[in-house]
Amino acid sequence: MKNVLISLGQRSYNIAIGSGILDRAGALLAELPLGKKALLVTNPAVGDLYAARVENSLAQAGFRVFRAQIPDGEQYKSLQSAATLYDRAFAAGLDRSCPVVALGGGVVGDLGGFAAATYMRGVPLVQIPTTLLAQVDSSVGGKVAVNHPRGKNIIGAFYQPVLVLSDTETLRTLAGREVRSGLAEVIKYGVIRDGRFFGWLEKNIGKVLALDPEALAHVVETSCRVKAAVVEEDETEQGTRAILNLGHTVGHAVESLTYYTDCNHGEAVAMGMATATRLAVQLGLCQAGEEKRVNELLHKAGLPLQIPGKLDPHEMIKAMARDKKAYGGEITFILPKTVGEVIIKNNISETDIVKAVQACQGQNL
Amino acid sequence: MKNVLISLGQRSYNIAIGSGILDRAGALLAELPLGKKALLVTNPAVGDLYAARVENSLAQAGFRVFRAQIPDGEQYKSLQSAATLYDRAFAAGLDRSCPVVALGGGVVGDLGGFAAATYMRGVPLVQIPTTLLAQVDSSVGGKVAVNHPRGKNIIGAFYQPVLVLSDTETLRTLAGREVRSGLAEVIKYGVIRDGRFFGWLEKNIGKVLALDPEALAHVVETSCRVKAAVVEEDETEQGTRAILNLGHTVGHAVESLTYYTDCNHGEAVAMGMATATRLAVQLGLCQAGEEKRVNELLHKAGLPLQIPGKLDPHEMIKAMARDKKAYGGEITFILPKTVGEVIIKNNISETDIVKAVQACQGQNL
Repeated sequence: MKNVLISLGQRSYNIAIGSGILDRAGALLAELPLGKKALLVTNPAVGDLYAARVENSLAQAGFRVFRAQIPDGEQYKSLQSAATLYDRAFAAGLDRSCPVVALGGGVVGDLGGFAAATYMRGVPLVQIPTTLLAQVDSSVGGKVAVNHPRGKNIIGAFYQPVLVLSDTETLRTLAGREVRSGLAEVIKYGVIRDGRFFGWLEKNIGKVLALDPEALAHVVETSCRVKAAVVEEDETEQGTRAILNLGHTVGHAVESLTYYTDCNHGEAVAMGMATATRLAVQLGLCQAGEEKRVNELLHKAGLPLQIPGKLDPHEMIKAMARDKKAYGGEITFILPKTVGEVIIKNNISETDIVKAVQACQGQNL
Repeated sequence: MKNVLISLGQRSYNIAIGSGILDRAGALLAELPLGKKALLVTNPAVGDLYAARVENSLAQAGFRVFRAQIPDGEQYKSLQSAATLYDRAFAAGLDRSCPVVALGGGVVGDLGGFAAATYMRGVPLVQIPTTLLAQVDSSVGGKVAVNHPRGKNIIGAFYQPVLVLSDTETLRTLAGREVRSGLAEVIKYGVIRDGRFFGWLEKNIGKVLALDPEALAHVVETSCRVKAAVVEEDETEQGTRAILNLGHTVGHAVESLTYYTDCNHGEAVAMGMATATRLAVQLGLCQAGEEKRVNELLHKAGLPLQIPGKLDPHEMIKAMARDKKAYGGEITFILPKTVGEVIIKNNISETDIVKAVQACQGQNL
């Protein structure tokens, strides 16, 4: 088992990474000062696969577990679902010391996390992410949220878990497309902060795609370390943390304008990284050779680089300005200088953005 | 104008107290790094009295203000009302830098605060409390919340404002009963931490009840200072902060078992303080002379000491164990040792609690 410590003062916590950790959930939770009732939030598919193992482990450690299953899908990451969780927690008599355990992917983690952040003004949150995307991204950094009818993650909080358990075995049941989606964020960590890790990925992407246990554990651990370092510098996204949005400025616009149907999050982020890198080259901030490396790794990971041709670049810019990360309608881009280093840039002209988007609509790698 | 600084590191903020501060809202907000759109949350009654003044002041400072009026009453302090505020903020194009300004009493402050804490994972919150209770209590300390159908303040967060403006002039339009309700919390501050302030209240309660501007300003300032000192020691209620619950263990039970209709919050807290003091004397922790002082001041402030005879002490104990401040059903009491000092105590026998409650059901001061 590997451990990554997220150092945030009183809000510090551990991420335990390894194979078979689900069965150790009870023992690991028992080490923390927690009440002995737990609300397990999951969805039916993940629940069928793993909930019983977690419940048994928790029961053996003396916890009484109440399971709440929320249907799968972004549309259930809602205030209504949160209200269902409050009802369940209240009926089960959970007090402020009792943990909410979120077992599943990003939807379960964000929703369960939001409920934990707001039930009785905050109860302990344990994340057990079961997708690659959740293990490398959404379970690190304390962002929890539900969706608003007019925007994703519009209602939320910064709320740190007390423990994260990432069982890499659960990744072996994922569909290939879901693994690739997670890899977009993994590659992002290499580009923003860790050139050496990027190099490792260039060599070992085949092993990762083949779900080799050691390769997966290395990917999850390294990704968590990079994200942790960034979050430790800027917990509530006042500055540096923005670099984690590499690929997301354009990615969110693609997702929003295609109504989250044509591509998944990682695919949109891959297109966004390609566009940001193109823009960086265009502005003379980055060498073409670096762009080639980024695009090739994304491609090898099975991720798309091409923005759907049907999207109007000007509409995309409007969507970027509406994003909750835009201030006063101003769009911020994260641009690679080299593999391993990025800069945060505002005031990019609309002409330049359109040009980069169009290039990524036409490109063939 | 008086200023009380709440020192919470990066989350520090000022409380400005004085007469006519409403008209200075714009100038004071302009000193902070805020976006230039503001969501003003209020209710129709307070809105009619004061919103235009705040809006004009903000407009002069360059803010574009969007008013959201929520009907008055605890039943509107709900997730549904919060959803209405998210909709309004989103439609108005508020970004993460734009403030929510809560103008009103505790309901408006708690609801507006909850929306600010969760919209886009937290936007700047400005509290402009217009009742004595809100000025001395709910606007200090960062507790924000909405109600759950089965319990008050069950859904919430700890979220500090960036500024609090307490205009003591607004207190002059309050009904006498509302002033007295606020005084219960004021007297509480004397009992838990400030014997000198308690002595001042004994001498000056007449002036306070007559709404003398200087006396009111002193009451608001001193109350904020005491509460600030406690909150600074324990922002998220892990320990010491519990002393702020003097009178609330029993008070919440009275409120809950009478469905929040027979008495208001301050009246319930007054009964609770009388009961806690009785219990302290009973347990030999406090002298009878101190109890007499507490009861006499509560009485002079026009507050009730007697718990309604219809309430069954055993049902009250069950309600106390269900309270969100109870851990594992264990009831915590805050007990005065003298005027100015309290202790936190668990493990009080049911017999002792029943005896104190019964004494307060029968008592005639």
